[in-house]
Amino acid sequence: MSGIFITLEGPDGSGKSTISRFLLDYLKKRKIDFIFTREPGGTPIGENIRKIILDKKNINMSSRTEALLYAASRSQHISEKIKPALDDGKVVVCERFVLSSLAYQGYARGLGIEEVKDINDFAIEGVIPDLTLFFNVDPVYALNRKTNRKGGDRLEKEGVNFHSKVYDGYKKLISLYPEKIKLIDASKSIEETFDQVRKEIEKIL
Amino acid sequence: MSGIFITLEGPDGSGKSTISRFLLDYLKKRKIDFIFTREPGGTPIGENIRKIILDKKNINMSSRTEALLYAASRSQHISEKIKPALDDGKVVVCERFVLSSLAYQGYARGLGIEEVKDINDFAIEGVIPDLTLFFNVDPVYALNRKTNRKGGDRLEKEGVNFHSKVYDGYKKLISLYPEKIKLIDASKSIEETFDQVRKEIEKIL
Repeated sequence: MSGIFITLEGPDGSGKSTISRFLLDYLKKRKIDFIFTREPGGTPIGENIRKIILDKKNINMSSRTEALLYAASRSQHISEKIKPALDDGKVVVCERFVLSSLAYQGYARGLGIEEVKDINDFAIEGVIPDLTLFFNVDPVYALNRKTNRKGGDRLEKEGVNFHSKVYDGYKKLISLYPEKIKLIDASKSIEETFDQVRKEIEKIL
Repeated sequence: MSGIFITLEGPDGSGKSTISRFLLDYLKKRKIDFIFTREPGGTPIGENIRKIILDKKNINMSSRTEALLYAASRSQHISEKIKPALDDGKVVVCERFVLSSLAYQGYARGLGIEEVKDINDFAIEGVIPDLTLFFNVDPVYALNRKTNRKGGDRLEKEGVNFHSKVYDGYKKLISLYPEKIKLIDASKSIEETFDQVRKEIEKIL
């Protein structure tokens, strides 16, 4: 594979989507051949899986089912979209990837980081990010910012305790894999936040 | 857990569903407290997952995605239906379970029996069958019997080569776990086939 795989991670409402738009403009201007994609979803099969995961009716979904559905969606995403683009030498920017599953299902749901990593290793066929940008911001502040904008899906409705636990999970993962994850201070203005992102991207392009 | 967990396995068209009906009548007559269920599916969430797996539109689904979706459906089935029934002391009869995934995805799709077993170990939380009945019949004969009845879904349409490979996978699994799997000669008449099933069930009840 000759492309570059960049993932954006962080709490709900940490600004990943907003900053993505700036990043995509920047890549266009630099005439870099890239694709942008996001999880869960990213493919038609993945979108169908995503609907099951986020459906408010599925309140009794077990944590293990949730973790396996994320891995299934990711597996299709890798084989149908991410791996072919990397093989073509493209830059792939993906909002959320394995780290989200480790923080949400592995840590916050208590399934175990190693256990959730194992099912994801099965899913991703050795395709790991070259750079992960972690949008670091207080999870309660981030959550309020997001849920004020719209109604919120099943996961967004889980409340402050859950999202604080997810944040603790991220912090633990950053301490486990410090060389792979770059912290972005996402409490700053959009311009200042994007400036940090741009600097990290320039180092790797 | 105080219940008894019985799974029915074998090629498509091997008679599992037909014999199940006889088995359920038999359990009713003996006033045994049981539930009957089948995979993929078995729960509302599992049925939604099943639709994605079997949808003819999803022709480009990767083998890993398929294996993870089966595991996700199974995980929900275990937590929502099978484990509670076993905890209540019931007999649980389930058409298809982990062995199907090992034969279909692990062996016939070439993902590896051990690899597929690992993601299923994550899914089933230690709930393993007390008895597995394998409906042994020539897979080409069985497939013709089934597809002559109806159009056939995505998996049934895969053709003779694939189903012969699944059968080879089952035979390999039987050699790996001989003490857990009882062979039923499903080439016999319905009455003779059910008679073998009844004898095995009586040993364990």
